[in-house]
Amino acid sequence: MSEEMKPGSLSLRPLGTAAAPKPEVLCIFGTGDLGRSLGQRLLQSGYRVVYGSRRPHSCGPLPQGAQVMSHAAAAQSASMIFICVHREHYNFLETMAPNLEAKVLVDLSNNLRKNMYPDANAAYLQRLVPGADVVKGLNTLSAWALQNGLLSGKQVYLCGNSAEAKQAVAEMATKLGLTVLDRGSLSAASELEDFPLRLFPEWRLPLKVAVGLTAFFFFYLLIRDVIYAYVEKGNDISYRIMVSLANKVFPIVSLIMLSLCYLPGVIAAFVQLYRGTKYRRFPDWLDRWMLCRKQMGLLALGFAFLHAIYTFIIPIRYSVRHKLISRVVNEMKDNETTPFYFDNTEAWATDSFYVLGILGLFLYVLLGLTSLPSVGGSLSWREFSFIQSKLGHLTLTICTTHGYIYGWKKFLLPSTYKWYTPPGYMLCLIVPSVVLVLKVLLLLPCVDRTLTRIRQGWERSQPREEMGDSKATNL
Amino acid sequence: MSEEMKPGSLSLRPLGTAAAPKPEVLCIFGTGDLGRSLGQRLLQSGYRVVYGSRRPHSCGPLPQGAQVMSHAAAAQSASMIFICVHREHYNFLETMAPNLEAKVLVDLSNNLRKNMYPDANAAYLQRLVPGADVVKGLNTLSAWALQNGLLSGKQVYLCGNSAEAKQAVAEMATKLGLTVLDRGSLSAASELEDFPLRLFPEWRLPLKVAVGLTAFFFFYLLIRDVIYAYVEKGNDISYRIMVSLANKVFPIVSLIMLSLCYLPGVIAAFVQLYRGTKYRRFPDWLDRWMLCRKQMGLLALGFAFLHAIYTFIIPIRYSVRHKLISRVVNEMKDNETTPFYFDNTEAWATDSFYVLGILGLFLYVLLGLTSLPSVGGSLSWREFSFIQSKLGHLTLTICTTHGYIYGWKKFLLPSTYKWYTPPGYMLCLIVPSVVLVLKVLLLLPCVDRTLTRIRQGWERSQPREEMGDSKATNL
Amino acid sequence: MSEEMKPGSLSLRPLGTAAAPKPEVLCIFGTGDLGRSLGQRLLQSGYRVVYGSRRPHSCGPLPQGAQVMSHAAAAQSASMIFICVHREHYNFLETMAPNLEAKVLVDLSNNLRKNMYPDANAAYLQRLVPGADVVKGLNTLSAWALQNGLLSGKQVYLCGNSAEAKQAVAEMATKLGLTVLDRGSLSAASELEDFPLRLFPEWRLPLKVAVGLTAFFFFYLLIRDVIYAYVEKGNDISYRIMVSLANKVFPIVSLIMLSLCYLPGVIAAFVQLYRGTKYRRFPDWLDRWMLCRKQMGLLALGFAFLHAIYTFIIPIRYSVRHKLISRVVNEMKDNETTPFYFDNTEAWATDSFYVLGILGLFLYVLLGLTSLPSVGGSLSWREFSFIQSKLGHLTLTICTTHGYIYGWKKFLLPSTYKWYTPPGYMLCLIVPSVVLVLKVLLLLPCVDRTLTRIRQGWERSQPREEMGDSKATNL
Repeated sequence: MSEEMKPGSLSLRPLGTAAAPKPEVLCIFGTGDLGRSLGQRLLQSGYRVVYGSRRPHSCGPLPQGAQVMSHAAAAQSASMIFICVHREHYNFLETMAPNLEAKVLVDLSNNLRKNMYPDANAAYLQRLVPGADVVKGLNTLSAWALQNGLLSGKQVYLCGNSAEAKQAVAEMATKLGLTVLDRGSLSAASELEDFPLRLFPEWRLPLKVAVGLTAFFFFYLLIRDVIYAYVEKGNDISYRIMVSLANKVFPIVSLIMLSLCYLPGVIAAFVQLYRGTKYRRFPDWLDRWMLCRKQMGLLALGFAFLHAIYTFIIPIRYSVRHKLISRVVNEMKDNETTPFYFDNTEAWATDSFYVLGILGLFLYVLLGLTSLPSVGGSLSWREFSFIQSKLGHLTLTICTTHGYIYGWKKFLLPSTYKWYTPPGYMLCLIVPSVVLVLKVLLLLPCVDRTLTRIRQGWERSQPREEMGDSKATNL
Repeated sequence: MSEEMKPGSLSLRPLGTAAAPKPEVLCIFGTGDLGRSLGQRLLQSGYRVVYGSRRPHSCGPLPQGAQVMSHAAAAQSASMIFICVHREHYNFLETMAPNLEAKVLVDLSNNLRKNMYPDANAAYLQRLVPGADVVKGLNTLSAWALQNGLLSGKQVYLCGNSAEAKQAVAEMATKLGLTVLDRGSLSAASELEDFPLRLFPEWRLPLKVAVGLTAFFFFYLLIRDVIYAYVEKGNDISYRIMVSLANKVFPIVSLIMLSLCYLPGVIAAFVQLYRGTKYRRFPDWLDRWMLCRKQMGLLALGFAFLHAIYTFIIPIRYSVRHKLISRVVNEMKDNETTPFYFDNTEAWATDSFYVLGILGLFLYVLLGLTSLPSVGGSLSWREFSFIQSKLGHLTLTICTTHGYIYGWKKFLLPSTYKWYTPPGYMLCLIVPSVVLVLKVLLLLPCVDRTLTRIRQGWERSQPREEMGDSKATNL
Repeated sequence: MSEEMKPGSLSLRPLGTAAAPKPEVLCIFGTGDLGRSLGQRLLQSGYRVVYGSRRPHSCGPLPQGAQVMSHAAAAQSASMIFICVHREHYNFLETMAPNLEAKVLVDLSNNLRKNMYPDANAAYLQRLVPGADVVKGLNTLSAWALQNGLLSGKQVYLCGNSAEAKQAVAEMATKLGLTVLDRGSLSAASELEDFPLRLFPEWRLPLKVAVGLTAFFFFYLLIRDVIYAYVEKGNDISYRIMVSLANKVFPIVSLIMLSLCYLPGVIAAFVQLYRGTKYRRFPDWLDRWMLCRKQMGLLALGFAFLHAIYTFIIPIRYSVRHKLISRVVNEMKDNETTPFYFDNTEAWATDSFYVLGILGLFLYVLLGLTSLPSVGGSLSWREFSFIQSKLGHLTLTICTTHGYIYGWKKFLLPSTYKWYTPPGYMLCLIVPSVVLVLKVLLLLPCVDRTLTRIRQGWERSQPREEMGDSKATNL
C-alpha cells in the first residue's frame, strides 16, 4: 500500500500475498476428521474451501462456510486439492484423472505401520494420476493439532517433482503459520510417510545403554550384597533389594551416563588433534554417539532424580528405624563402660558427601532445564555452550567427587573386596575419571591453543585460504 | 530475483511481498503505551509509521523514525489505521469519518471487564465510521510483548466484514511473526474482546473438582481420625491436622484426579462401541470433561508433589521424633523380657510401598513435562499418544497399587472401620480400580479389534465409502 | 489461484511470494560449516544455491543440489550474496568490487570476542565494496541450528542502509521460518555483532546481589554460630558449616531475593502516586531493577530448592542421628525421675512451620514454571499478571510467615542476641516485611482507586485528552 493510494481504490489493488481480491479456493477430497479440521483451519486463514465427496448430501457436519460438491465439480473449482482419504480408497482418483490434469494434489495420508505397502502412498497417487503434480507433505499434522490451532512455528516437510507445485503448497503452509522444509523429489515420500510413525528414534540407543547398565549393576550388586550375605553369613537381607540396592544402582548408572555425555566430545577433540583438521568427518559411531548426548543426559538426570528421592525416604523406612532403635539399645548397654563418642571427621565427611550430592543434583536440574526447547532456544550460542560445556563438566566433577567421598576410606580395606570383586561405586568411577583426566589434558594451554586453531579452520598440512565460521563444532 | 537479472536493476524490481520499493506507510491513532510499542514494532519490521494525535507537538516520546501529524493528515497518508485509543474517546472518529472512507481501521481496544458496554468496541467503531472497513484483532497483544519482541509464533485472531481488509491486516501481522486465525465477521468482535479478560477458563472445572474432593476428604478424615480419637479415647491429637491429615488427603485427591483424567477416555470408548460409529458427537458433559483432562492431570501432579514433600519431612517433625524416642524407651523396658524382633515381611511391604510411590511420582513428573507446550509440540503424534496413554495408564496402575499396599493387611481388620466408616484410602481406590478394570476390558483382543475399526471410520450399520484420517480420536 | 483458472495454465502463473516459476538463485561466499549449513537450509526452503570459492574444484563436501563456481561467476548469477567468510579474509572482496556492484551483501560474520576490531565487520565490508548494499544480520544463527532445523519462530536482527536490500533479506528470512526485526542503519552493525557474544547480561545484577547476600550472611552466621561457640564455650562445631549453616544462609537469601522482586513494583507505584502521572520515566536504577525481576525470582527459587533438599537430608546426617541417640540416652537416665512430656504447642508450631515452608515452595515452583517461555507465552495478559502479582505476593506472605514462625518465641529471649547481634532470620525478615506493609497500603481502597486511575492515563495536573491503552504498566 503506497502513500499515493487514494481512498476507495482499496479493492482494486493486490493486497498481500494472495495478490487477488477474492480469497483463493482450495479443494479437499475427504470429509473425515482430518479433512474437516484442515478445512476449518484453511477457512480461518482466509481461504475458501470446497469439499469433494461421493455423497455430497450426506457427508456429515462440515466447517461453517465450506461448500460440498461432487469430486469432479470440486476439482474443477480449485487448482490445489488436498487428498484426505485413506490409500485404500485412492482408486476412484484414477477414474477422474482427466479432471485432475495439471492440478496440485497434496497427499496428506499416513499408514498405520511401516512398510504396509511396497511403495509410498504419494508415489501410488502419482501413478494413478500421472498428469497431476503430486506433493507429499503436511502429513505430520494431526487433526487434533489443526483443530486446536497448535500450528504456529511447527515445521512440516514437503516433497514432490514439481518445484512450482511445492512452491504453491509452501505458500499455503506459511499462511497457516507453519515452516516448510523441502525434502526434494517425490522419491522422499516414503521417508516422509514414516515420520508420524517414529517412536523416539533418538532415544533408542541411550535407552539401551541405560537398560544394559542398570541390569548389569543390579545383578552385580545383588550377588555382592544379598547373595554374598546369604551364602557367607546366612543372613537373609533380601528386603534390601527394593530400596538399598536400587539406590546403589541408580547413582552408578546416572554417573556413568553423564560421563558418556561428555566422553564423545573429548574423543572428537583428540581425533581432531590427531588428524590436524576439522574438515574430515568423524567415524559413524562417533557421530551417532554425539547426536544422542542430550538424551543420554536426560536419562542420567532421571536416574539422579530417582536416587535423590530414594535417599529422602531413607529415614522413614521400617528397616532403618529398626536399625536406629537397635543401635540405641546397644548404645545403652555399652554406655556403662565406654563414653558415647562424636567423630568430627565422620561428621565432616558425611556432610561433604551430602552437600556434593545436592549441588550435583542442582546443576543436573539446571542442565535439564536448558535442554527444554523453549529455554534452550532463548539462549545465545555462547550462553548455550557455556551451560552445556562449562556447567556440564562442573556437574561431572562434582558428582564424581561425590562418588569418591562415598568410598573415601574404604578403598584400601580388604573387606571391601567381597569375593575378590570391587564394589559398584569403584567400577562406576572409572569412566568419569577418564573423561575428567582427558578434559584436563585438553585444557592444557598448548593443546587448547592448537585445538582452537583447528576449530577455526586451520589445518596442519595444507592451510585453507577461505574459512567458514567455526561455530558448528559443538563439543 | 531471477538469474537473468543485471546488476544495478535492483531497485526497479519488486522485491518480496511488499512488492514496492518504498516501505508501506501505516497510521496509528493514539500515542499511549500500546500505540508507541506497536509503532516501534512496525518500524522494526520495515514499515513507515505515522501517528495521528490531537496535539501533535506535545504528545510525549515516540519511537525514533515515526512521524506525528494531526489525525486527518495522518489518515490521509495511509490506507490502514490502528486505533490505539480507549473506547471512551472514539467519538472524535465520527467527526472525521469522511477522512476514513474506505480505510482499513484496526480496532485493538480491550475493556477493563466483561460486558462493560452493550456492544463490542469494534461494532461501535463501525457504526461511527460506516464507510471504513473495521477489523477487530491483535487485541491479545500487550504493549509489553510488543516492546520485548515476544511475538514470534504467537497466534492472534481477526474478525471483520471485509475479506480484503482482513487479508491486508493478516499480511501485516504475518510480517510481525504472528500467526493469524480468522474468526469470521465483525459479529465475533465481542468474543475477541473477551479473550484478554479470560482467567483460566479451562481450569475452572478441574479446580472445582479438586476443591470439592479436598474439602470432603478433609472433613471425613477429621471426623474419623481426630474427632474419633477425642470422643472415644479422650486423646487430643489435633496437632496431626497440619501434616498427617493433610498428607492423607493429598494422595487421595491426587489419585482420584488422575483416574478422572482417564475415565472419560474409557467412557468414550464404550460409547463408541455401543453406538458402533465414531461419527456421532459425544454428549456435552463428556466433551467438556475430555477437554479438561490435561488440567486435571496437572492438578493431580500438584497434589502428588505436595504428598511427596510432606512425606520427606516426616522424620524431622517434633511429634515423629518424640514417638521414636518413646518407642525406644518402651523398647528398653521390654528388652529385658522379649527379644527385639525384625519383621522381614514388614520390611518388604513398606519398601515396596515406598518404591511404588517413588516410581509413580517419577512417571507423574514425566507426564507433566510432556504437557509443557514446547516439549509436547516436539513429539510426533505417535510419541505423544504413547506417553499420554500408555505411560498414563501405567502411572495410574502403579499409584493404585501404591494405595492397595498401603492398606494391604488392614482391609479385613474390624478396627479399621471406625464408627462403621471405611478409611479414606479405601474410598479413593474405587474410581481408579473401576477405570483400570474397564481399560483391561477394552484391551481384550475382540473388543480392541472392533474399537480400532470404529476409530478408522468403520460403522456397524452403514459403512461409509469414503473415510478420513482417524488420527483425531484422541482418547 | 482464482476460480477461473484453467487446468494446464499452472506453470504460466506466478505462484506465491517468489512470484517466479524458477526458484530464486542465492549466492554464498565461503564453504565452511556456516556456509554449508546455510546453503542446505536455503535449498530446503526452495531456493537455488551457488557457492563462490577460490578453489571450486577442491572445496570439500557441499549440500546436494548446490553449484560451485569461482567467486566472480557465482556473484554474477545472483543478486543476493551471503558472506560466510571470516573478516580476516575479506580483502579479496575489494579486488572483485566491480562484480559486486548493486548486489545485496549479507554479512553473517561474528568475532571471537568484543572489540576485536575498531569497526564492525559489516562497516568494513561496506568500505571495501562501496557499490554494494551491505546488510548485517542473521549472525545469531549457528551452523548447528541451521542444520537441525531449529529456526521456526526464532527472531533475527537486520540492519543496513538500503531499505530495499533489507526488505529482500527479510523476505528470505521469513521463508526460513524466522521473524525479522529491523534495527535500523548499518551503524547498528557492531551492536548486532555483539549479540552472539552476550553471556547472560540480564543475570549479572541479580547474580551479584545473590553472591553478595550469600557471602554476607555466610560470614555473619559463621561468626555468630561457629566462632561464638568456639570462643565462648570452647566447642568445635565447625562440622556444621557444610549443612546447618548453609541451610540457614539459603532460605535467608531466597526470601530477601524474593522480596527484592516485588519491592521495585511497590516503589514504582509510590513514585506514580507521588508524581500523579504515569507518563514520566522512572529513574534509571528503578528501570534496571524492574527489568531483572524475573532473574531475581528464579535465583530465589534456586536457593529455595537448595533449602528444601538440605532440609530433606537432615535426618540421615551423622550428627543428627548422633544427637538423637544422645537425647534418647539422656532421656532414659532422666526417665526415672521426670515423665517424658509431649508438648502440644510445640507440635503445632513446628508442623505449621513446615507446612508453610512446603506451601511456599509449591507456589515458588508454580511461579518458576510460568516463567518458562512456552508456558508464559500461552497465558493471557490477565492470567500472567494474576500469577506473577497475586500468587507472587501470596508466596512472599507465606514465606515471610514461615520465617516469623521459625523465631516465634525466640524474639524476646536475651540468649538469642549472641554478642549483641540479632540472628540471621531476624535480619532477613526486614525487607519482606517492609514490602508487605507497603503493598497493604497500596491495597487500601482510596490509594488503589487513585493508582488505577493514574495507570489508565489520568494525570493529576493536566489531564490528557487522548489516552493509550494502559496494559503496559506491568507492576
